[in-house]
Amino acid sequence: MRKYNVAILGATGVVGQQMLKCLDEQDFPVGNIKLLASARSAGKTVKFQDTDIAIEEARDEAFDGVDIVLGAAENDIAQRFIPVAREKGCVTVDNSSAYRLDPDVPLVVPEINPEDIAKHKGIIANPNCATIIGLVPVFPLHKAAGVKRIIASTYQAASGAGINGLRELEDQIGRFGRGEEMSDPKAFAYQLAFNLIPQIGGFDENGYTSEEMKMQNEGRKIMHVPELRVNCTCIRVPVMRSHSESITIELENKLTPDEARAILATAPGVKLVDDPAAQQYPMPLDTTDQDLIFVGRIREDISAADGTYGLTLWCAGDQIRKGAATNAVQIAKLLTV
Amino acid sequence: MRKYNVAILGATGVVGQQMLKCLDEQDFPVGNIKLLASARSAGKTVKFQDTDIAIEEARDEAFDGVDIVLGAAENDIAQRFIPVAREKGCVTVDNSSAYRLDPDVPLVVPEINPEDIAKHKGIIANPNCATIIGLVPVFPLHKAAGVKRIIASTYQAASGAGINGLRELEDQIGRFGRGEEMSDPKAFAYQLAFNLIPQIGGFDENGYTSEEMKMQNEGRKIMHVPELRVNCTCIRVPVMRSHSESITIELENKLTPDEARAILATAPGVKLVDDPAAQQYPMPLDTTDQDLIFVGRIREDISAADGTYGLTLWCAGDQIRKGAATNAVQIAKLLTV
Repeated sequence: MRKYNVAILGATGVVGQQMLKCLDEQDFPVGNIKLLASARSAGKTVKFQDTDIAIEEARDEAFDGVDIVLGAAENDIAQRFIPVAREKGCVTVDNSSAYRLDPDVPLVVPEINPEDIAKHKGIIANPNCATIIGLVPVFPLHKAAGVKRIIASTYQAASGAGINGLRELEDQIGRFGRGEEMSDPKAFAYQLAFNLIPQIGGFDENGYTSEEMKMQNEGRKIMHVPELRVNCTCIRVPVMRSHSESITIELENKLTPDEARAILATAPGVKLVDDPAAQQYPMPLDTTDQDLIFVGRIREDISAADGTYGLTLWCAGDQIRKGAATNAVQIAKLLTV
Repeated sequence: MRKYNVAILGATGVVGQQMLKCLDEQDFPVGNIKLLASARSAGKTVKFQDTDIAIEEARDEAFDGVDIVLGAAENDIAQRFIPVAREKGCVTVDNSSAYRLDPDVPLVVPEINPEDIAKHKGIIANPNCATIIGLVPVFPLHKAAGVKRIIASTYQAASGAGINGLRELEDQIGRFGRGEEMSDPKAFAYQLAFNLIPQIGGFDENGYTSEEMKMQNEGRKIMHVPELRVNCTCIRVPVMRSHSESITIELENKLTPDEARAILATAPGVKLVDDPAAQQYPMPLDTTDQDLIFVGRIREDISAADGTYGLTLWCAGDQIRKGAATNAVQIAKLLTV
């Protein structure tokens, strides 16, 4: 079997570290592996399959001989190095938002539009985490009954702000537990412990944040529904690493909750957890550090007007895994078949 | 000025204790005051305006000579004693859900339907906390443009489950901070720290919880809009005592975000906190232990179909105060004018 030389750009972050684990878990045919990061991390070592791998500074020459780059860096780093990698013949699966809406770049959730991968010109984009987590359970319902409109409210974990977000929430909770004074927030604009922050990303002129516009902009491209309308409200919550979402969908055709459950019971990437009588429903603690999107609380949208059809559901998934690293490695694996 | 003899039924709970504070803050003309609770609390004393008040066991005779009862007990206790109090000539403002949908019982938010108080026959019901917190900012928009439909996702604090809910979250966070093992949850079905629980109340046959149906059932009665359609998803979050809500409203007539902001800037019971550029928006920590509902993140519903109008907003308010005790004491005060 052919092996592929892989580089992880941004290898020291939470997503980069998870990508390394996912390569192993998904039995990716890794040949040589390079872990690229900023100069200040260079020289540290990270374990991969019982081997210590030294972290290298990300520089143009680092991409020589690399087949597949997994991008886990911020937009500026992505834009600095990914064109270089492409010049050198690498294919990059990039988790930044820099290329997601570029018409030459496929934006892929393997459970939804794996066929788009074939159109790549050296870059494939990994969607926004809340978009992946919401669309994996919504897409099978779209295939069955046509989704026209999505109204979503998110409950997004601290890990969405990277390792500093996670550590800040842990630190705040720790201080509370030890009876110490709160420190000033840095990763977030405000204290997150015991709080909710209704801003993720910057504000657009229409009053939505960049994060809130992603589910519509990326959702249209991923699901190939250019007229899809999405109203999203993104809220940061004091949870570690799983995002949850309250989603109401408006459908072209009627679909009962039982029909939706039957579809989702066998849908790829989804675990149906919908037994209210037994108090079984998706929760972030249960979805942490695994790859499936849990979906439940499926019910008719009782506010839908006569003659219109809608469903309401609740889903949760690990933001670092399926929301980022798992999805990227799944795409990379499809490049090898 | 006439003074009123007041009894608080369920005086030892978080809502009962807050009612006592609100009586003082709202300069309620208190004559004699009785604090009624279960036999096991009887004899303990509580401070009210520099006087120690002994807690009495709630018994039929306790209501003799009382003018106004503030009910802060569960449904079974409410149903046991409120009819007795009525027989004895008391008027009860009851925070339980026992009488809310009774056609003989006004259900009142003073900022919305104070005129309904006059129709009482000895009982006035205080609405559900999430319903009050959502409707105080929605009602002025309804008056301006007609609300047909509400889609709401709530972020409800631990205090909604009473003192045991608050203490359980504090205990869990404390254990995490001290590096101790988590204890088994009791007040909630699952660990709430770092988690979200998508169930508040029991499940109806339609898949909604009792809590989720309250905003529609109570909202129709409070706003006098019998055909109002509400789709609500209620989620418990690891926040202490303020509930927050992501609300999308469908309107009869167009209302721009600027028009909505102008209305809410002078609406009663509301504080407009809506300056995204300055990162000013409602947050539960900022709304804790005060009486206003903060509203912000007001924007057009970009998912509304052509020819329909909608707005999306985010609000937060103290669940123990305006969601319960403050609203009840406001009603009681209107009984005295």
